[in-house]
Amino acid sequence: MTRYEHLATLLAQRIEQGLYRSGERLPSVRSLSAEHGVSISTVQQAYHLLEEKQMITPQSRSGYFVASRKATPPMPALTRPAQRPVEVTQWDAVLELINSRLEKDVLQLGSGMPDLTQPTIKPLWKAFSRQAQKQEMALLNYDNLYGVLELRQQVARLAIDSGCQLTADDIVITTGCHEALSVAVRAVCEPGDIIAVESPSFHGIMQTLRGFGIRAIEIPTDAVTGISLEALELAFDQWPIKAVVVVPNCNNPLGFIMPEPRKRALLTLAQRFDAAVIEDDVYGELAWDYPRPPTIKALDLDGRVLLCSSFSKTLAPGLRVGWVAPGRYRDRVLHMKYIVTGSTATQPQHAVSEFIRQGHYQPHLRRMRQIYHRNYETFSCWVRHYFPCGICVSRPQGGFLMWIELPEPFDAVRLNRELRESKIQIAVGSLFSASGKYRNCLRLNYGLPINDQTEQALAKVGAAVERAMRACQHDDLPAALPSDLLVAK
Amino acid sequence: MTRYEHLATLLAQRIEQGLYRSGERLPSVRSLSAEHGVSISTVQQAYHLLEEKQMITPQSRSGYFVASRKATPPMPALTRPAQRPVEVTQWDAVLELINSRLEKDVLQLGSGMPDLTQPTIKPLWKAFSRQAQKQEMALLNYDNLYGVLELRQQVARLAIDSGCQLTADDIVITTGCHEALSVAVRAVCEPGDIIAVESPSFHGIMQTLRGFGIRAIEIPTDAVTGISLEALELAFDQWPIKAVVVVPNCNNPLGFIMPEPRKRALLTLAQRFDAAVIEDDVYGELAWDYPRPPTIKALDLDGRVLLCSSFSKTLAPGLRVGWVAPGRYRDRVLHMKYIVTGSTATQPQHAVSEFIRQGHYQPHLRRMRQIYHRNYETFSCWVRHYFPCGICVSRPQGGFLMWIELPEPFDAVRLNRELRESKIQIAVGSLFSASGKYRNCLRLNYGLPINDQTEQALAKVGAAVERAMRACQHDDLPAALPSDLLVAK
Repeated sequence: MTRYEHLATLLAQRIEQGLYRSGERLPSVRSLSAEHGVSISTVQQAYHLLEEKQMITPQSRSGYFVASRKATPPMPALTRPAQRPVEVTQWDAVLELINSRLEKDVLQLGSGMPDLTQPTIKPLWKAFSRQAQKQEMALLNYDNLYGVLELRQQVARLAIDSGCQLTADDIVITTGCHEALSVAVRAVCEPGDIIAVESPSFHGIMQTLRGFGIRAIEIPTDAVTGISLEALELAFDQWPIKAVVVVPNCNNPLGFIMPEPRKRALLTLAQRFDAAVIEDDVYGELAWDYPRPPTIKALDLDGRVLLCSSFSKTLAPGLRVGWVAPGRYRDRVLHMKYIVTGSTATQPQHAVSEFIRQGHYQPHLRRMRQIYHRNYETFSCWVRHYFPCGICVSRPQGGFLMWIELPEPFDAVRLNRELRESKIQIAVGSLFSASGKYRNCLRLNYGLPINDQTEQALAKVGAAVERAMRACQHDDLPAALPSDLLVAK
Repeated sequence: MTRYEHLATLLAQRIEQGLYRSGERLPSVRSLSAEHGVSISTVQQAYHLLEEKQMITPQSRSGYFVASRKATPPMPALTRPAQRPVEVTQWDAVLELINSRLEKDVLQLGSGMPDLTQPTIKPLWKAFSRQAQKQEMALLNYDNLYGVLELRQQVARLAIDSGCQLTADDIVITTGCHEALSVAVRAVCEPGDIIAVESPSFHGIMQTLRGFGIRAIEIPTDAVTGISLEALELAFDQWPIKAVVVVPNCNNPLGFIMPEPRKRALLTLAQRFDAAVIEDDVYGELAWDYPRPPTIKALDLDGRVLLCSSFSKTLAPGLRVGWVAPGRYRDRVLHMKYIVTGSTATQPQHAVSEFIRQGHYQPHLRRMRQIYHRNYETFSCWVRHYFPCGICVSRPQGGFLMWIELPEPFDAVRLNRELRESKIQIAVGSLFSASGKYRNCLRLNYGLPINDQTEQALAKVGAAVERAMRACQHDDLPAALPSDLLVAK
């Protein structure tokens, strides 16, 4: 982070914390320069940045003032799903979300795509180029079932940062985290079994449960501390739960990092009821703070945690390079891996391995963390600015996903349909519930490049939300405008 | 095929057919030259080729003689598996086969790897190189769930050769044929269901059944005409069979091409009992004869055939680019594809697509068909030469796999263990049965480059087989030498 960015972050925090209130005059450029021992131009750049983020406004000859704005929206409260095992539904809605990827010129605010435009990714192309020059036959051949050895060694080394002591033999490379989760679920469950999930929870994992005939029990989840251990314990008491699936680091969709004591308590609970823990860490390396938070796997002594991750969010999803550290379930995981894809595509594994070997991965991660963090600040300003009052917004601690809760009976499905006219796509909240709850919520991706187009799109989303909320309040009209009205517009 | 190769093939056929008998003098070079209107040197080259294949022997000043040799071994008879649904076993043996891929310097005679050394594959590297130069962001991003559109269009066009009328919308790209088969099975079955398979049958598909808790019923299969329709009908009468899995073209492991009337009859049977047909066509494009044989899918009017294939055998397995044409099961297949891998790796799809677009695929296929056919002829000569009498050998009509049946109670598992000392790996027959039948059989790959090393390896296999068979006949010793004896050697 440069000096001016550092200063801007500091000032932004003071504004957030209320040290400088709405409409208040900020310190002069000269006094800040003296206070922080930086140049005048550094302060000016910092103020300029905050102005861009609409946190402050300049007034000619009077200096800078804290922009008059709405209060920071509160965070979503602890969720209250129905706590009984259910068959997962919502596949049609997931398919709709996936299909919208096909549509050109649609701004994918609902997607889970990372930013692929940064220069730190370029060495990956060089790795592919070198492969093509060398023409090694092995790269065209079947890889072994476990995955490329060097890559597994590197993954094991990377896992040290999350507190894990793993060797290459503890890792199985998979076709993205999707396959990792899929084989993990099948390794610990039979059809008809019950798995506990966070609520809201990543739709990919829930559709996996559906596909294998496994029932989901949604557990109340807090936007700061994660899955409710109290509710989970009650569920364990009541139902024969085989496994718990959690995204404890930079949760999808809520963005929290589960505090370490709670991670430990979750594991103890799983031990007590002899359940497996399937831990999805796909966003874990994108936590704002360094060093990154530990995984539950790091605390695991009896091999009951299946750690699943990939390079899809940190590097590039099209590579389809993920992995699972399956602990004591290794044999079952290998069998499932074999029947599902046989082996993972060979070239992308070698390219990622070369990228890491040459030392490009950590600088890339650092840059992406910074970019997503900065994007988040801009994005949350925009949400505050363009969205109406009465909403709740998550405060992610990493990753690039934001969860917005609107007052019931708001209908995000209709909102999404309305926005499609404007070539904007969001992820509707009901995707993240086994039984279609959270229809009043939406998930947004702030990882995409931040520019005028993004801001205008967010302004449109905000305006549409406001219209729909007003309609909700005033009469019995549906919570979003019917699409025929919109076509007529 | 060059002139001399053509002539050599013709002469080889005459020898095979018994027109020239063992020890008989062959026509003089001059007379053959006149008979076929080719040059003296062409005939000499043809004779030289046959000499290399050990089909003929020169005698100085007397010309060429048909090599004295054993009779062509008979083909395996119709198999006789136990015709009741069973849980699939043999996973440990499959894992052993897969793990041996990891061992360096082991000649993989048991593998399903294609020959990757031919120059016609080079343009694929160029396609990868151009990708790396262009650095298109889309190649790093998630592909859509169905697969790259252009590739699906090309696959649909290629399918015309097998008699199929498909569009891009009828195709779903998968991570190799493995995933195609896996999603196909899950699309038509629930755990506990029964699927009918050929016997012997590809171990990949059978492990898939095991993994999903589906029982297999093995149907007697003929090395020339394929699955016994009479036995299949009886099985349908007796059991609630949900689907039949077949490899009707260049069968793995038996090598037959199912005659078209029998393909039609199989489909009629499936219609009568309302079962799905899962058709694995992964070797279909490698049939010796051109045009290639039709698929069952080509005859399918009500969408009950799920055609599964890939570029793994025709181009390169490390790409993991396969596809399924799922007919009426498309929605279920898409759901399974989503939960299993999300999407297929993007770059390999584009590279294959460019390879096809630029017209490299058909010339490559032509070359590979010729090479595998020629390899087969050499290989079958070697088997005749080095293996003892009393064996049965398949006569494949395409692909690169050969099935050898040895008299009971021969134990190929022990043979395999013995050969591992000599750094040779074979595929033991029991892998190809749900219940571990065919322990007296083995599958060999003649697709690997044919050279002295291959010949020596085959000589070793033949000698080991002979020793073991002699031990079987003479006393109660196990059918292959115990490994402790071997270590002492």
